[in-house]
Amino acid sequence: MTAMGTLVLLRHGQSVWNAENLFTGWVDVPLTETGEQEARRGGELLREAGLLPDVVHTSLLRRAISTAHLALDACDRHWIPVTRDWRLNERHYGALQGKDKKQTLAEFGEEQFMLWRRSYDTPPPEIEPGTEFDQSGDVRYAGAPVPRTECLKDVVERFLPYWESAVVPDLRAGKTVLLAAHGNSLRALVKHLDGISDADIAGLNIPTGMPLRYDLDDDLRPTVAGGTYLDPQAAADAAAAVAAQGR
Amino acid sequence: MTAMGTLVLLRHGQSVWNAENLFTGWVDVPLTETGEQEARRGGELLREAGLLPDVVHTSLLRRAISTAHLALDACDRHWIPVTRDWRLNERHYGALQGKDKKQTLAEFGEEQFMLWRRSYDTPPPEIEPGTEFDQSGDVRYAGAPVPRTECLKDVVERFLPYWESAVVPDLRAGKTVLLAAHGNSLRALVKHLDGISDADIAGLNIPTGMPLRYDLDDDLRPTVAGGTYLDPQAAADAAAAVAAQGR
Repeated sequence: MTAMGTLVLLRHGQSVWNAENLFTGWVDVPLTETGEQEARRGGELLREAGLLPDVVHTSLLRRAISTAHLALDACDRHWIPVTRDWRLNERHYGALQGKDKKQTLAEFGEEQFMLWRRSYDTPPPEIEPGTEFDQSGDVRYAGAPVPRTECLKDVVERFLPYWESAVVPDLRAGKTVLLAAHGNSLRALVKHLDGISDADIAGLNIPTGMPLRYDLDDDLRPTVAGGTYLDPQAAADAAAAVAAQGR
Repeated sequence: MTAMGTLVLLRHGQSVWNAENLFTGWVDVPLTETGEQEARRGGELLREAGLLPDVVHTSLLRRAISTAHLALDACDRHWIPVTRDWRLNERHYGALQGKDKKQTLAEFGEEQFMLWRRSYDTPPPEIEPGTEFDQSGDVRYAGAPVPRTECLKDVVERFLPYWESAVVPDLRAGKTVLLAAHGNSLRALVKHLDGISDADIAGLNIPTGMPLRYDLDDDLRPTVAGGTYLDPQAAADAAAAVAAQGR
């Protein structure tokens, strides 16, 4: 039997709205120059580690697509097969999309703010269809059930069918699989892989542009809990910065 | 029945070796900054024309892959499905890969030079396996018959099976299909579509970064011979410059 492949998670580099400290969700903002550098650096880390993807899966959002392109270009894997799917998208932030994180914290207070950001099953208020940051008319999602808001539990539920049907077969075929996605779609997967509780997942933050390697056994359980960042110190510093957003 | 889709051909923007006037073939050189701008401009032309691709097919070479990424990003179609195949690659230039066009012209004379560049069935001398610009050990072509040299006839023969099996079904499904490829893989297709003779194809040059639209009837014949450049004057000027290379 073929040895299980290797999974590499990569959160997109800094986006324009990361830099402006706005809730982004499904709003399709580009990377900043810093974000582009992070993506290239991510690819260099892959190259240095000899961890060269055979296939890549991305969301339908520009910041993940550009990150994948730049990272793969940097490790000479720009030519591998690509699959894109809305199920890898960031969590939909509902009515918070486009709102300033600091203002939202000031307006609603610490408890409500953290509930929306990190509780497992409390979604933000729904976005109003037809408003500026709503995606319900976007042609790229034709046929898909565009959410009006999502909690992390919703992301787990819409992401896992894709994981099972599209990613696991690549891993079972022995491939090195890059997932270029988002803070919360990757948190959803890590929760599943590592069996993290609904409460504990609140404390897990995934930094931008830092490749996170998971070696899995035949039952798809991580051989090292939490995986391994290719640059552990940089990842720890960056995760702390994510946790501090809005402050 | 579904109306036939629309075909859009896009030769990659200027590459580093276009700028240095070297024969490139399967050597995987990046775009210049000018080439990146051309690619974005190509995408803007698509957007202005409302000619928005539903799917994209690229070669396995960085200059076509980056061109597709930048052009699609510019017309907000970065998220469409992507297929990559070696059959869209540039013609393999054999032992000429990496050689200066002007020096080659001076060394071998006008007749031999034009025979290699533009004759239908005379390939350049074969590249020696294991030398710097040979691709026979490149993992991206594992399973594919990596050529040691190719004439345009060889490109027609290896490209058409992909056209029939992968591109035509997209067109028959009514899609707008972007092919991001190369001077000679696109010349091979245009020869086939427009029924250009082996002799006359010598005079056809395709400029970099200029979207070329083909509307096809149900028998896959162009409704306008030669297709339509979205920016005809710029395309004519640029094609004349391609023809003058090596001078």
